[in-house]
Amino acid sequence: MSKPSLARGTRDFGPEIMAKRTYILDTIKFVFKKFGFLPLETPAIENLSVLMGKYGDEGDQLLFKILNSGDFLKKVKPGDLEEGTKTVLPKVAEKGLRYDLTVPFARFVAMNRHDLAMPFKRFQVQPVWRADRPQRGRYREFYQCDADVVGTDSLLCEAEIILMLHEVFGALQLKDFTVKMNNRKVLTGIAEAIGAPGRESELCVAIDKLDKIGKEKVEAELSERGFENSSIANLQTLFSLTDDIHETVATLKDWLKDSGIGQKGIEEIEEVLELVNGFGLENPKLMFDATLARGLSYYTGAIFEVKANGVQIGSISGGGRYDNLTGTFGLPDLSGVGISFGVDRIYDVLDELNLFPEDASQSTRVLLINFDSESQKACLPILSKLRSAGIASELYPTDAKLKKQFDYANKKGIPFVLVVGSEEIKMQKYSLKNMATGDQNHYTLDEIIQQINA
Amino acid sequence: MSKPSLARGTRDFGPEIMAKRTYILDTIKFVFKKFGFLPLETPAIENLSVLMGKYGDEGDQLLFKILNSGDFLKKVKPGDLEEGTKTVLPKVAEKGLRYDLTVPFARFVAMNRHDLAMPFKRFQVQPVWRADRPQRGRYREFYQCDADVVGTDSLLCEAEIILMLHEVFGALQLKDFTVKMNNRKVLTGIAEAIGAPGRESELCVAIDKLDKIGKEKVEAELSERGFENSSIANLQTLFSLTDDIHETVATLKDWLKDSGIGQKGIEEIEEVLELVNGFGLENPKLMFDATLARGLSYYTGAIFEVKANGVQIGSISGGGRYDNLTGTFGLPDLSGVGISFGVDRIYDVLDELNLFPEDASQSTRVLLINFDSESQKACLPILSKLRSAGIASELYPTDAKLKKQFDYANKKGIPFVLVVGSEEIKMQKYSLKNMATGDQNHYTLDEIIQQINA
Repeated sequence: MSKPSLARGTRDFGPEIMAKRTYILDTIKFVFKKFGFLPLETPAIENLSVLMGKYGDEGDQLLFKILNSGDFLKKVKPGDLEEGTKTVLPKVAEKGLRYDLTVPFARFVAMNRHDLAMPFKRFQVQPVWRADRPQRGRYREFYQCDADVVGTDSLLCEAEIILMLHEVFGALQLKDFTVKMNNRKVLTGIAEAIGAPGRESELCVAIDKLDKIGKEKVEAELSERGFENSSIANLQTLFSLTDDIHETVATLKDWLKDSGIGQKGIEEIEEVLELVNGFGLENPKLMFDATLARGLSYYTGAIFEVKANGVQIGSISGGGRYDNLTGTFGLPDLSGVGISFGVDRIYDVLDELNLFPEDASQSTRVLLINFDSESQKACLPILSKLRSAGIASELYPTDAKLKKQFDYANKKGIPFVLVVGSEEIKMQKYSLKNMATGDQNHYTLDEIIQQINA
Repeated sequence: MSKPSLARGTRDFGPEIMAKRTYILDTIKFVFKKFGFLPLETPAIENLSVLMGKYGDEGDQLLFKILNSGDFLKKVKPGDLEEGTKTVLPKVAEKGLRYDLTVPFARFVAMNRHDLAMPFKRFQVQPVWRADRPQRGRYREFYQCDADVVGTDSLLCEAEIILMLHEVFGALQLKDFTVKMNNRKVLTGIAEAIGAPGRESELCVAIDKLDKIGKEKVEAELSERGFENSSIANLQTLFSLTDDIHETVATLKDWLKDSGIGQKGIEEIEEVLELVNGFGLENPKLMFDATLARGLSYYTGAIFEVKANGVQIGSISGGGRYDNLTGTFGLPDLSGVGISFGVDRIYDVLDELNLFPEDASQSTRVLLINFDSESQKACLPILSKLRSAGIASELYPTDAKLKKQFDYANKKGIPFVLVVGSEEIKMQKYSLKNMATGDQNHYTLDEIIQQINA
């Protein structure tokens, strides 16, 4: 007998947390479906040939690998041990755990290309695993919640992502958020405009840190990376942009007037804005942030990020357009755009702002309390009628002391308690206690159903 | 670039399958909640110390083990290789994948005993992994869907399980099913009655095969196992039982009159029947099958199994009462009873009997078809209004040829198509086509919303 424990970096989700997480995920899924996205699930276990080499060297390290079953040593030769893990790994492990939802999605599209309605819009809500060092807010097993469209470069998809973000956070009652957007082509244009063409990746890595380390340190880093002083000086326009989206567009148009790709990026942003406007979205919480890079080098067009204002937490959603998602699986030239919701962070934001609805707990609505086997017997048909009326109901399973039965209701957060004693059985009126207000009165069963459903 | 493939024994669930699976799981979860069960999720990754030794030697073999991250060879000494996997395994792997939902549930209860409202009623719907040889209908990654109550031996729980089974399969429109029940104490009593006390485990193993191999072969196996001829002859009463539950109870009462525990088992069954009756369950599809053992030696009271009649498939649900679930984690004497739904088999049954509802597909309800950028622009506010009315809607993202747009609707199973051309824009009446009937007419937007929601 050993004291049981959770594996490092993993969590149990008990009933209360589950109810709140389900509330978030159901809200997001509802919006995804309303926009025509269909559900997909892929297996947790993938062949390492599918996963390796897709996330860089660091990603390969962070993949959880599964030991081959049976005699996992049968391919290992005595000398292999000295060669180290690189030699031994492919001999003892052929499978691994999903690291994100994007690569399995790409594999699915490549394998099913002939059966899918293209453009293919899917959403996927499943856990992923990373052998990261666990720390506050970083887990080894966590959910991702993604929606992607592949097979079209229509900017309608970008506009719809902006709409979905507003619908999701609106439905979650999160009023104060900002959808930041940018376009990778604008970043490319900026690199050209400052006389450092083709170096937008390095530029991105540095300016991606602007929020965290400030302008001076970004400039120092650029200098260290060998950017000319004139280039860095030229970047001032970038640092001086305001939050006004139309002003920013105008400034950039002028600044990037000699960069064809930069102009293209700005035009794309303008078209997306026009589409969003055409949808009639009221009070769009939209900001054009030309410094937004999201560190991910595979974005080729739009880049999105959502921040909850007034809460000290990173972005709660992010995404963008990428080309060639499935190229590595033999299906080239498929453009796509996707958005990912950070469930753990959204949970923390709603919790901090006290935005979870009272009834999110999904608990039992009424507990029937009984005194003896006669009283228990009388409870059975009542229980059936309550449940038929769609009311989640329970009968305490024994005739334990009243205090114990009430404690159970309290601990489980059950809002109503129905006392069924011999008097009540005779009267056909039962004593209903509202646990929040303490009110207690006798009612007929029909009245009780009304009260609980009110 | 390699041709991508699924890991052996795993599956993708594309949109159509997902919709049907979601229909099944949502139905089951809805019933669980109505009966006061609360959701729990545990991590896929558990410490091997939690998992090993809980499923027998064969189970230990079938656990997927996860290679330690980083230098997984650091504890392996040169001589270890010759010692084989038993020596090497604990040095290279400390974690494994969940094999069922019961052991993680027991771990959760043991770790959180002081915070849980007891009796604790939880449901859990998550995948599990087994390194079994994959074959038709047997996968290495599959969902389990369990509900358990722990912390009470009240037979009310057994009665509620029978109710839940009827509600779930009723809601799934599966009319012809049988809930078989038995009690481990009856099996113990039978062992006593035939003069082989204490040998009910062996007896169970043999009679569990009755359905598959027939009476003669069961008798031969018992003889081989050293049961006396007189004992085997005495078993005839068991083989002669009818489907009539009250007749069976009467016969067993007489047969097991000298076995105290046998009588106790029959009394428990009678009390459960009485409780079910008290709930007012109409036409219970209940059968007392004294040969039902479900091979699982840990059941100590009630045993349940559900069969879909007229479909060649194993049981679609099963469960029973167990004692000492959490004993191995230092929390003894906790009695519980649980039920598990076989999602894959229920899927196959509903598919074979054509019982999935038409609208289970959850697809987009209407596709807006456009001719050019003007037409696309006109679609945007229409799309917003449809979605505000709760209608899942899509606009084809480009002005592709009409045939291509209609093909998309067909492939995705979208029931309505809305054509928005220049004439329609002028009239403010749009052409709605019902894809099933082929009917096509012009309507105002309000009329369209009514038609689609009809």
